[in-house]
Amino acid sequence: MANSKYEHVRKYELDDELLPGCYIVIRVDGKGFTKFSTLHNFEKPNDINALLLMDEAAKAVLVDYPDIRIAFGQSDEYSFVLHKNTAIYGRRSSKLVSLITSCFTSNYVRFWPQVMGEDRALKCSPTFDGRAVLYPSEELVKDYLSWRQVDTHINNQYNTCFWALVQQGNKTPAQAQEELRGSDAEFKNELLYSQFGINYNTLPEQFKKGSVVVMQRRKVVVKMTESGVPVEREKTEPTVLHCDIIRTEAGAFWAQNPDLLK
Amino acid sequence: MANSKYEHVRKYELDDELLPGCYIVIRVDGKGFTKFSTLHNFEKPNDINALLLMDEAAKAVLVDYPDIRIAFGQSDEYSFVLHKNTAIYGRRSSKLVSLITSCFTSNYVRFWPQVMGEDRALKCSPTFDGRAVLYPSEELVKDYLSWRQVDTHINNQYNTCFWALVQQGNKTPAQAQEELRGSDAEFKNELLYSQFGINYNTLPEQFKKGSVVVMQRRKVVVKMTESGVPVEREKTEPTVLHCDIIRTEAGAFWAQNPDLLK
Amino acid sequence: MANSKYEHVRKYELDDELLPGCYIVIRVDGKGFTKFSTLHNFEKPNDINALLLMDEAAKAVLVDYPDIRIAFGQSDEYSFVLHKNTAIYGRRSSKLVSLITSCFTSNYVRFWPQVMGEDRALKCSPTFDGRAVLYPSEELVKDYLSWRQVDTHINNQYNTCFWALVQQGNKTPAQAQEELRGSDAEFKNELLYSQFGINYNTLPEQFKKGSVVVMQRRKVVVKMTESGVPVEREKTEPTVLHCDIIRTEAGAFWAQNPDLLK
Amino acid sequence: MANSKYEHVRKYELDDELLPGCYIVIRVDGKGFTKFSTLHNFEKPNDINALLLMDEAAKAVLVDYPDIRIAFGQSDEYSFVLHKNTAIYGRRSSKLVSLITSCFTSNYVRFWPQVMGEDRALKCSPTFDGRAVLYPSEELVKDYLSWRQVDTHINNQYNTCFWALVQQGNKTPAQAQEELRGSDAEFKNELLYSQFGINYNTLPEQFKKGSVVVMQRRKVVVKMTESGVPVEREKTEPTVLHCDIIRTEAGAFWAQNPDLLK
Repeated sequence: MANSKYEHVRKYELDDELLPGCYIVIRVDGKGFTKFSTLHNFEKPNDINALLLMDEAAKAVLVDYPDIRIAFGQSDEYSFVLHKNTAIYGRRSSKLVSLITSCFTSNYVRFWPQVMGEDRALKCSPTFDGRAVLYPSEELVKDYLSWRQVDTHINNQYNTCFWALVQQGNKTPAQAQEELRGSDAEFKNELLYSQFGINYNTLPEQFKKGSVVVMQRRKVVVKMTESGVPVEREKTEPTVLHCDIIRTEAGAFWAQNPDLLK
Repeated sequence: MANSKYEHVRKYELDDELLPGCYIVIRVDGKGFTKFSTLHNFEKPNDINALLLMDEAAKAVLVDYPDIRIAFGQSDEYSFVLHKNTAIYGRRSSKLVSLITSCFTSNYVRFWPQVMGEDRALKCSPTFDGRAVLYPSEELVKDYLSWRQVDTHINNQYNTCFWALVQQGNKTPAQAQEELRGSDAEFKNELLYSQFGINYNTLPEQFKKGSVVVMQRRKVVVKMTESGVPVEREKTEPTVLHCDIIRTEAGAFWAQNPDLLK
Repeated sequence: MANSKYEHVRKYELDDELLPGCYIVIRVDGKGFTKFSTLHNFEKPNDINALLLMDEAAKAVLVDYPDIRIAFGQSDEYSFVLHKNTAIYGRRSSKLVSLITSCFTSNYVRFWPQVMGEDRALKCSPTFDGRAVLYPSEELVKDYLSWRQVDTHINNQYNTCFWALVQQGNKTPAQAQEELRGSDAEFKNELLYSQFGINYNTLPEQFKKGSVVVMQRRKVVVKMTESGVPVEREKTEPTVLHCDIIRTEAGAFWAQNPDLLK
Repeated sequence: MANSKYEHVRKYELDDELLPGCYIVIRVDGKGFTKFSTLHNFEKPNDINALLLMDEAAKAVLVDYPDIRIAFGQSDEYSFVLHKNTAIYGRRSSKLVSLITSCFTSNYVRFWPQVMGEDRALKCSPTFDGRAVLYPSEELVKDYLSWRQVDTHINNQYNTCFWALVQQGNKTPAQAQEELRGSDAEFKNELLYSQFGINYNTLPEQFKKGSVVVMQRRKVVVKMTESGVPVEREKTEPTVLHCDIIRTEAGAFWAQNPDLLK
C-alpha cells in the first residue's frame, strides 16, 4: 500500500477514553462574548433573542445526541449531561467535546438570521470552547446543575442592577461597579426596588433561572385535515423550561423527573 | 458567598495540559459528510466550491491562532499544526481542540452562502469532530503532512476513476467499486486514459495535492487614492497553495520554507 | 539561583490527578512469579508461607496508608481499595501507584527471611507491577472484589487438580493440562474426590477464598505485669480474614461491615 | 465461564500509554529519607555505604531493563532514562513507573545487609515513589540530567557546610541554617576553607557529581584456570561513573558517548 511509508505517524494518536460509569458533562462557553455581544448590539442586561438562539442551538444538540439527558444554559454557556453509561464514540473525550461544541456552533450560526433578525447580520464568527467533566454520581450532577443555576441568579441580579444604574441612573460603568462592589442580595433587591421600581422577583423566570432543556413526549400538530382540523401526534422533542432545578422536595423538578438521570 | 455550597463540583475539572516541546496537530473532520455532500448536491468527484469553503474556514482559523504554522486540507478534513513551543491556553487539550473545531465550523457555516451560492441553502447543520495529536520532532510533523498528502492523492485517484465509471461509463456504484478493487495506481491511470481520455497528471493540482495554508507576507491593495491609484501595503495573510509538501530537495516546499517549523 | 538555567525541564512534569469521588483500587502483581516460585521451591499448588508473606506485606501497606479500607490478595497479587474521598498525595496516580507498590515490595523482601525461613534465601529480587483503577460507586468496588475472589476459587480449583495429577497421578504437566482443558467445576471436584480422595470443600479457606485485610479494633497484649498477668489494650490493627466477600445477605461480610466503604 | 458476571469491572482499566518518540525519564525518590537516614545512623553529610547501596539498586535496574540508556543518582533519588523508541510494556505509564520503582526498592532492601553491614539492620521498610516524565528531544534529556547534577553540587556544598558547622563548629542546626541562609557558592567555599580547612574542590567526585550509570563493555574475570591464571571475557555491565555530564566540549562525557541517546 502506497500509504504505508508514513502510516507510522498514526501511533501517536493516543486513546482518551473517559472513565466508564460516570456522567459526562460537556460545557460549551462563548469565546470573547462580552466583545461579541457589544459588536452585535445585544440588549442589556438580557437579550431575549440571543438567549433564544442559545436555546435553539442546544435543542439541536439534544436531537443529535439522544444520550444527553438534560442541558442547562445561561448567558453564553450551555452544559450537556450525558448518561453515565453512554457508549457513544467509545466515550472518547476529544471526539465528544469537539462534536458537541461543533454541533452547537453550527446551529448557532445557521439559526442566527431567523432568530436575531435579518437586520442584525453576523459581523464575525462566534466561537465556543468546550470541555468534559466527569461526575461519578447522580447527586454530584445535581450539585453541578445547582451550581450553574445559582450562578445564573447571582449574575442576573448583578447585571440587572448594573445596567439599571448605567441606563436609567446615569452612572458610568465604573461608578455602577463601585456602588455594587461587595453588596449582598438584599442590598441589590432593595436598590432595584427603591431606585428603579423594579421588583426582582417578578422579572422573567428565563432571566433568573436560565434554560433547562429535556426531551419530552408532547402532542405536536403534524398536519391539518382538509377541513382544517389539526391532526396531533405524540413526539419526543427537546423542550425548554425555566424552572428551578435546585430544590428536591415533592413537586419540584427532580421529584417530578425521578428517572431522568437513572 | 452564596455560590460556595456547590462550588465543590469544580474540583472535578482536571488538568489536560499537552506535553510541552511537541508540535500539536489538530485535525478536524466532517461528520457524516458522504450524506451531507449528497444532500447538498456536491459535484463528484470534487466540488470546487465546497473545497474553497473548507479553505476559507481554515484561513479564518489561521488568522485567529497565529501559533499555527501550517495547515493542510483535503476533502472534508483539515489539519492545523501549532508550533511546538506554543503556550496558548496553557496547551490545554480540550480548550485547543474545541476552540479550533468551533472556529472552523463557525466560519464554514457563516461563509456558506457566499461561497456555495444562495441557491444552495444549508439544509442541515454541518459538524466536525476534532482531535489533538502530539509530534515530538519536526521530521515527524513532515511525515504527518506527507501522510495526509499521499492520502489525498490516493483518494482522488480512486474517486476520479469511480465517478468516471459511474457518470460516464454507466456503471452502478457497486460495479465501479468491483472494477477498482485492489487495483494499483498504474491500472487506474491507464483506465482513466484509455476509457475516458483523462490524463490524471493534468488534473488540477488542487484535487491531487490538497490545500496547504501558510501565513505569507504579501502586497495587498488597502485603498485607492482619489485619482484612482491603488495603494499597496505589505500584510501577513493566510495563503492557500496546492503544492507538494513531501519532497525535501532544493527548490521544494520545505527547502524554500526552512524555518516554518523552527 | 545557580540551578535556574535547567529548571525549565520541570514544566514537563504533568499533573496526573485521579478523578475525585471515585474509589481508587491499586493492584500489585508479581512479575514473573511462575519462574520466581520455581526458583524458590514454592510448594504447589499453594505455599502457605509464601501466602503469609504476601499477607504480611499487605498488612504493612494498610498500616502506612490509613485511607485503604480493604485489601484483597491471592497468589502473587494484592488489591488495595482507597476510600473515594481520599486526598492523599493530591490523588496523583504515579505517586500512589509507585508508593504502594514500593511499600509492598519493600516489606515483602524485608520480611522474607523470617516468614520463609533462613534456609530459603532470596536468589533474586522479587518485583511487582502496580496500576490504579477507578470505580465510581460502592457497588462497582464490591463487584471488583467479587471478581478477584471468584478468580481465586477458579484458579485454586484448577491448580489443585493440576498438581494432584502431576504429583500423585504421575502425569506430565502437558497431560494434566490436557485432561483439564475445558472441564467445569463439577468435573474437577469429582476428579479430586474419586482419584485422590480430596474433598475440595474441606480444603483451607485461605486457598479457596484468598485473603481479605481490614483494619479492626482488637484487644492486644501490650505487656506483662511483674506478676506475669497480660495487660491488654484495644488497638486498631490490620487483620487478615479468609471469608466470603461476594454474598451480601444478612450475616455475610458486607452486612456485618456496612460502613466499610462509606 | 463462571467468572463473567463480574468481568465488566475490567472495562474501568483505562489505557495510559506514554507518547511515542519521547525519552521516558523515571525518577525514584526516597520517601521520608531524612527520618530514615537518622534512624539508621547515616553518616553526614554523605554516607558512602548508603550511596553505594543506591548505586547497587540502580545497577540491578539497568540489568533488568536494557532500554535504559543512562541513569543518574544522588542522595536518595535516582533517574532512569529510557530510549525514546522503547516499546517495553507498550509504554504504559503505570507499568513502567511501578516496575522500575519496585525493582529499585527490592534490590535496595535485598542488598542492604551486605552493603550496609550486618550491624546496621533495617528497622523499617524503605519506600520510594516514582514518576515518569517525557522529554521530546535529546537536548532536553541532557538538560534534565544537568539539572539533577547541578542540584547534586548545590545540595552537597550546602550540606558539607551545614554539617561542618554542626559537627566541628559546635553550632546548633538552627544556627548553622541561619549562617548559611542566602549565601552564595563562594561564601560557602571560603567558609569551609577558612574555618574547617576543607578544600571543597578536593572532596570526592562521588559527593560533588553524583553517580552516572551506563552499560559498558568491559573485560571481566569470569574464572580462574587450574594454574590460577584469570580468564577474562568481554561483558556488557552497568558501570558507575562520577563524572561531569553537563559539559559537551571535546573530551567531555557526551563527546565521548555521542550515540548514547541516539
